[in-house]
Amino acid sequence: MNYETLKETVYQANMGLNEAGLVTLTWGNASGVNRELGVMAIKPSGVSYDVLKPSDIVIQSIETGEVVEGSLRPSSDAPTHLVLYRAFPEIGGVVHTHSSYATSWAQACLEIPPFGTTHADHFSGPVPLTRQLTEQEIQEAYEENTGRIIIERFQTPEQISPLHFPGVLVPFHGPFTWGESPEKALQNAVALETIALMAVTTLAVNPKGSHIPDSLLNKHFQRKHGKNAYYGQK
Amino acid sequence: MNYETLKETVYQANMGLNEAGLVTLTWGNASGVNRELGVMAIKPSGVSYDVLKPSDIVIQSIETGEVVEGSLRPSSDAPTHLVLYRAFPEIGGVVHTHSSYATSWAQACLEIPPFGTTHADHFSGPVPLTRQLTEQEIQEAYEENTGRIIIERFQTPEQISPLHFPGVLVPFHGPFTWGESPEKALQNAVALETIALMAVTTLAVNPKGSHIPDSLLNKHFQRKHGKNAYYGQK
Amino acid sequence: MNYETLKETVYQANMGLNEAGLVTLTWGNASGVNRELGVMAIKPSGVSYDVLKPSDIVIQSIETGEVVEGSLRPSSDAPTHLVLYRAFPEIGGVVHTHSSYATSWAQACLEIPPFGTTHADHFSGPVPLTRQLTEQEIQEAYEENTGRIIIERFQTPEQISPLHFPGVLVPFHGPFTWGESPEKALQNAVALETIALMAVTTLAVNPKGSHIPDSLLNKHFQRKHGKNAYYGQK
Amino acid sequence: MNYETLKETVYQANMGLNEAGLVTLTWGNASGVNRELGVMAIKPSGVSYDVLKPSDIVIQSIETGEVVEGSLRPSSDAPTHLVLYRAFPEIGGVVHTHSSYATSWAQACLEIPPFGTTHADHFSGPVPLTRQLTEQEIQEAYEENTGRIIIERFQTPEQISPLHFPGVLVPFHGPFTWGESPEKALQNAVALETIALMAVTTLAVNPKGSHIPDSLLNKHFQRKHGKNAYYGQK
Repeated sequence: MNYETLKETVYQANMGLNEAGLVTLTWGNASGVNRELGVMAIKPSGVSYDVLKPSDIVIQSIETGEVVEGSLRPSSDAPTHLVLYRAFPEIGGVVHTHSSYATSWAQACLEIPPFGTTHADHFSGPVPLTRQLTEQEIQEAYEENTGRIIIERFQTPEQISPLHFPGVLVPFHGPFTWGESPEKALQNAVALETIALMAVTTLAVNPKGSHIPDSLLNKHFQRKHGKNAYYGQK
Repeated sequence: MNYETLKETVYQANMGLNEAGLVTLTWGNASGVNRELGVMAIKPSGVSYDVLKPSDIVIQSIETGEVVEGSLRPSSDAPTHLVLYRAFPEIGGVVHTHSSYATSWAQACLEIPPFGTTHADHFSGPVPLTRQLTEQEIQEAYEENTGRIIIERFQTPEQISPLHFPGVLVPFHGPFTWGESPEKALQNAVALETIALMAVTTLAVNPKGSHIPDSLLNKHFQRKHGKNAYYGQK
Repeated sequence: MNYETLKETVYQANMGLNEAGLVTLTWGNASGVNRELGVMAIKPSGVSYDVLKPSDIVIQSIETGEVVEGSLRPSSDAPTHLVLYRAFPEIGGVVHTHSSYATSWAQACLEIPPFGTTHADHFSGPVPLTRQLTEQEIQEAYEENTGRIIIERFQTPEQISPLHFPGVLVPFHGPFTWGESPEKALQNAVALETIALMAVTTLAVNPKGSHIPDSLLNKHFQRKHGKNAYYGQK
Repeated sequence: MNYETLKETVYQANMGLNEAGLVTLTWGNASGVNRELGVMAIKPSGVSYDVLKPSDIVIQSIETGEVVEGSLRPSSDAPTHLVLYRAFPEIGGVVHTHSSYATSWAQACLEIPPFGTTHADHFSGPVPLTRQLTEQEIQEAYEENTGRIIIERFQTPEQISPLHFPGVLVPFHGPFTWGESPEKALQNAVALETIALMAVTTLAVNPKGSHIPDSLLNKHFQRKHGKNAYYGQK
């Protein structure tokens, strides 16, 4: 069985994270899946971007998490990625970073309010925030539970779609983003970081910062992602 | 008919936007016009700066908006650019970005106060802010209406000149800048972003931040743009 | 006796400081030790990173501070480094910078609160702050006394471990970091600067900023540094 | 008469300004003098750093301001530089920028308080601020008067030395720095920008921000600039 294409795609997404300035040291990882083959490809744990090669990418079974190819240990966050792929069949890539501004909102335990069309071009409402993990959830299967509280957030208080909200903040931790491919997950990580920076600055200038009107938010989200989207080439 | 020179100039302005760090992903576009030929050249929609070529630039009729050369779809913001060229005969280039600091002021729904000579070197007063679009204006001909509220802002509450105020903020959205050429529009986009950053920081240090005195503002604007300008080479 | 390897390692750590953007002009220095040989290698004072060569690195006796190899004057902060190596036998590298955000916390005379897992991945509690130097300690043996108040801070009010807290802030001055090697000390300097930036932003967004729960802090510190650490490759 | 060396030195300082990220568009200029020849060399007005050549540098008489070599118009700020060289015989280079953070303090009409040793390594007290220009001083000989209020600030309320305070803020405008050479003036411009950024951040973290104690300020200024300075190589 041949995983070369998937590994190359995931390698490119990881390098793109670093090139986009979202990564300090080794704090970040991107993964992708091949649903037909039932596998996820992910960055190995703690390997420097300076030396990362496509052949270092680790292949795991989506169902069992078992490593099916690769000699390195997968990212310590792999269990979180796996939970997301199992729960969100529409996604093909996941990215986790500690990018400074998105992480600051996560540390502040606040959703990012939709302050403008840049936000609306990517998220059809506030960037969601999960609940905190309980002490027991932290002690046992921590990374898997991180995935579970993300899923929970997309079911309560109301159900929201992972393609309408292609990312989330985990309190005291940082952002996870995703998309139909690793490349799209990377673009959403880049967008989220910029949205987060602009939200900080918007509040600095106008502490009463009012949300973008719903009609404008929907217009922008739909012109890029709706049935009649007209942004980009066909 | 030959549009090569115009396309090359507009290509250069688009690449300059990216090199100046004003663009995240594909959020930005620059255009230029040839008034004699009655055409506007603009970036195609959603094309990455990594692969953009001069031949990708799309040519549209200023009067009708019809594409007269190019196989790609023009920027989704093209109708806004066209409205500006029709209303402001003195301009030859338009730039739209979501650059972080200028966009933050737009999201905060605030004009940028003239805090110093850097501002005065480019704008002869506050960076203007348009009114918000109505729900109907958002639903129908959104991008064209964005152009219309910009024109409206330059007519009320008092008439201001597009060369004295070479840019504007659209609430919850971001900045548009312009100039006598695409290159000048680009320079004004760069200047506006720096002005916006410094205005945020000025307020952080001194929340009472007082405006530059009128005499100093006029001195700086005039030494660069007035009849007896003495900045730069002749 | 041959110090080439140590000098090369220390040279690389110094260049890494500069490449990581932690250094303005010549404000920064990295050192390393060879405990068997009883020597410290350190950057020469005030030499520009543009011209620094491995052979410029100065070798000093850990015990006496005497220069045992090298024709240049060692960093003016060398006496601080020496005090740290004498008191903390578990460390092999020390870094001092004036990196902007960590220095701002030092200037604010505040410990950096543990706001998230990025912090917890490196420090198992707040980034400690020393007491201020007395006037006499400033007048006499200033750099040595800077080392002494750092040691004092790790003994009072309670004893803390230099590998659990691989750095410190000196009031009105800036950060010192360390680690088992010069490379680790450099990584901790990079991490500290990012932690410091995110703490500023976290407070900007949420001035009541609550600390990461202890259970989550311990989980993250232990998964990277504990007996059963599972971050990175074996 | 041969001005090649001076022009090359001034060219390098101007390029260094740009490389250090202190310049947006063409907002910045560096000059240097040869006291024996009685001349100042300065950047031509409004010339882009992309195309600037050593031969573009303009030579003016310090005494009369007359251009004695060069075909381009000198920087519009040249009269300010000339006033400084006439009044401060100990300086050999002057730099003017609109670097974002130093300019923000100037726009806020506030001196930069000495918050730490980074500041004390360059300024032996607050970064001074001049008074505002009167309307008449703006109308007539604006640039020359900018130089005059700088000189005035170094005489009142008490006399301060231009080498102890190698820069100044002009209200609503921005910073001027200087030094014994163009290179030193450039280094002081770089230092001032970093000091300005850290002062903003220090206040953000601790709005009550207390000044560095005098004893520590003097220690740092003296260890770098005093009779018994021991920073750097001999």
